[in-house]
Amino acid sequence: MWADLAPVGRDPDGGGYHRHAWNGADTDARAWFTEAATARGLDVRTDRNGNLWAWWGTPGPGAVATGSHLDSVPDGGAFDGPLGVVGALAAVDELRRRGTVPDRPLAVTVFAEEEGGRFGVPCLGSRLTAGEISPERARGLTDASGTTWARAMEAAGHDPHAIGADPGALADLDVFVELHVEQGRALEDTRHPVGVASAIWPHGRWRMDFAGRADHAGTTRMADRSDPMLPFAHTVLAARSLAEEHDARATVAKALVTPNGTNAIPSLVSAWLDARAADGATLDAVVAGVREAAGRAARAHGVDHAMANESLTPLVSFAHGLRERLAEVVATRAPEPGVPVLPTGAGHDAGVLAAHVPTAMLYVRNPTGVSHSPEEWARPEDCHDGVLALADVLQDLLARPVRKGDR
Amino acid sequence: MWADLAPVGRDPDGGGYHRHAWNGADTDARAWFTEAATARGLDVRTDRNGNLWAWWGTPGPGAVATGSHLDSVPDGGAFDGPLGVVGALAAVDELRRRGTVPDRPLAVTVFAEEEGGRFGVPCLGSRLTAGEISPERARGLTDASGTTWARAMEAAGHDPHAIGADPGALADLDVFVELHVEQGRALEDTRHPVGVASAIWPHGRWRMDFAGRADHAGTTRMADRSDPMLPFAHTVLAARSLAEEHDARATVAKALVTPNGTNAIPSLVSAWLDARAADGATLDAVVAGVREAAGRAARAHGVDHAMANESLTPLVSFAHGLRERLAEVVATRAPEPGVPVLPTGAGHDAGVLAAHVPTAMLYVRNPTGVSHSPEEWARPEDCHDGVLALADVLQDLLARPVRKGDR
Repeated sequence: MWADLAPVGRDPDGGGYHRHAWNGADTDARAWFTEAATARGLDVRTDRNGNLWAWWGTPGPGAVATGSHLDSVPDGGAFDGPLGVVGALAAVDELRRRGTVPDRPLAVTVFAEEEGGRFGVPCLGSRLTAGEISPERARGLTDASGTTWARAMEAAGHDPHAIGADPGALADLDVFVELHVEQGRALEDTRHPVGVASAIWPHGRWRMDFAGRADHAGTTRMADRSDPMLPFAHTVLAARSLAEEHDARATVAKALVTPNGTNAIPSLVSAWLDARAADGATLDAVVAGVREAAGRAARAHGVDHAMANESLTPLVSFAHGLRERLAEVVATRAPEPGVPVLPTGAGHDAGVLAAHVPTAMLYVRNPTGVSHSPEEWARPEDCHDGVLALADVLQDLLARPVRKGDR
Repeated sequence: MWADLAPVGRDPDGGGYHRHAWNGADTDARAWFTEAATARGLDVRTDRNGNLWAWWGTPGPGAVATGSHLDSVPDGGAFDGPLGVVGALAAVDELRRRGTVPDRPLAVTVFAEEEGGRFGVPCLGSRLTAGEISPERARGLTDASGTTWARAMEAAGHDPHAIGADPGALADLDVFVELHVEQGRALEDTRHPVGVASAIWPHGRWRMDFAGRADHAGTTRMADRSDPMLPFAHTVLAARSLAEEHDARATVAKALVTPNGTNAIPSLVSAWLDARAADGATLDAVVAGVREAAGRAARAHGVDHAMANESLTPLVSFAHGLRERLAEVVATRAPEPGVPVLPTGAGHDAGVLAAHVPTAMLYVRNPTGVSHSPEEWARPEDCHDGVLALADVLQDLLARPVRKGDR
């Protein structure tokens, strides 16, 4: 299964993945999923937002759902997303092998545009279903070449006019569990191949535009310039200092320079800030500090500065009872007591769904902690342990609905 | 004439020009030139390097040549280049109106890829003809999408195997004069619409690669990162400080971030330094300072750093006798004595040819000094004065060959 999916959207030179919503590689990955799920007798349906649901049993109330996403960041790794989809199908195989006959429906899900790698808003598929972004705004989101979400979705054969909140689908879910590669080295420092998520740090993205004056790089005196590259550079360094000061994360990883010619002082530098922190107040302080530093540097260089939030996800604490229940199930195979329960700085579809459905996550150990990179990796035996743990958890959840005390 | 050329390659929204070697707009601009020159009875020939020569009279020894280029920087202005081509054709019209019958050949030239806007090396057409870049290197130059100069030239209908030095063509030239919009405000502070060039500052381009480690922006601790955006930002600021300190010019106007995803710490930031100074020693000091600052910042962040020169043009002093002769001719129409003789920080085909042929330049006043921007502009009456001055100069040069004392 893994061997069939692995080449889809992989750069043959660098090994990085380029699966972005509705592009060719994404379409191929979705086709792979449909085939693999259908071959298992699952009934694959596409919901109004382009998310895939492969059903074991008839869709309806009390459903147990598990899954992740197949899209990647640009030049991303093989595990972030696919592990949770392939792992879910493998867990279905394992449940079948055990002779499990669910008396409630089970769904394996693939959410669209989780990384926001093409249209900028992460978890777009789950956000739409949860009603956390308006259909109008989603339809109008554009990729780097100006193509809208609506047009890209339509070109891939889906109706962009049908998108929007799907409260009925969520109301049918008793629980959602996402298996994911760990994006840090916390498990590597333990003997545990599998951990349970405690919380997702509040995080967001901000677009910063520095607008200066195009001019000749050779003839314009330094003092006469309004060069937006300079406040941009100040802001990159300020974000780093502020993150260190607040024990948070702040990253400027994307920048677009206009016109981007060697001898033409830019008219515009657009850059994106990704910021995360353990709590909302700290996140606010970091972002306010970046905004202030950017504004000050822009004024000093005669450059206009604007900063706009593109997405913001508050702190997600996964349901305490449910995560304790998962930790107990995972402990049955763990090499020693004390299954780690870990927070993360990364956003997930599980984080979006958690506000609407009892939700939990399992992490598979990552030896280097590297993620969003071709070098992202997990040991095959740890992935196997992750699949067994997911199967155990699904079996437990199918046998006994989530109760109030689990939330 | 101006009205016909003006729309070619102009962005209908922003008004900036996108004429780059062998693209559609460049092809259209070259076709415009061929038609305009042919309509004047000039014989248009394309040389082995893709430069255009429109001949009045039979090509041969003792020729007087004038012209400039039609390509632009990305989002460039209407005057840088085209003024010297349109102005040359208008000067031919003016000479005809005066009844001038040259007893030596006169050529109006259009040099290819002067800005280096597509393939990175400025003055590529004139450099090839002057033998200042090897045909092998030129053929292998690539644009942003990986297309080589050879393939782009071939697609435009020219033979890339024929490119290379053309000493015979240069030996036939008695003199070359380029009319150009000023790229500064020196003339604006005087009553003179037209000035004469004294020198071109030594200048060059350097590519800097900062190679770090791709990683997740949300989960990787600040201390664990090798983020190349940070030394890049330090380098941008260092270049600015060094330029101010040395009264030179240093600009980082082009940057490419890989993979350029909001939540993926970059694996690579490539950036280009454009540096210029009044003399070679100052230029060396600025570039050495940038190299040291970049290396130091890269080491501090665990990032690899490499810096390679892509082009370097030493100081060009235009022939003293010739420029004094031009200044005398220009003075006959000047509003007051003392025609300005000015240095510039901008490179030109005239600067490349100056090592091989007696060469001079005329500048037309620029009210804002802005250049390489849609806002680049010169007053129509100043352009007209520039054409009359060029016609006077050509008439003088046709009547009396450049002598040893003029060099």
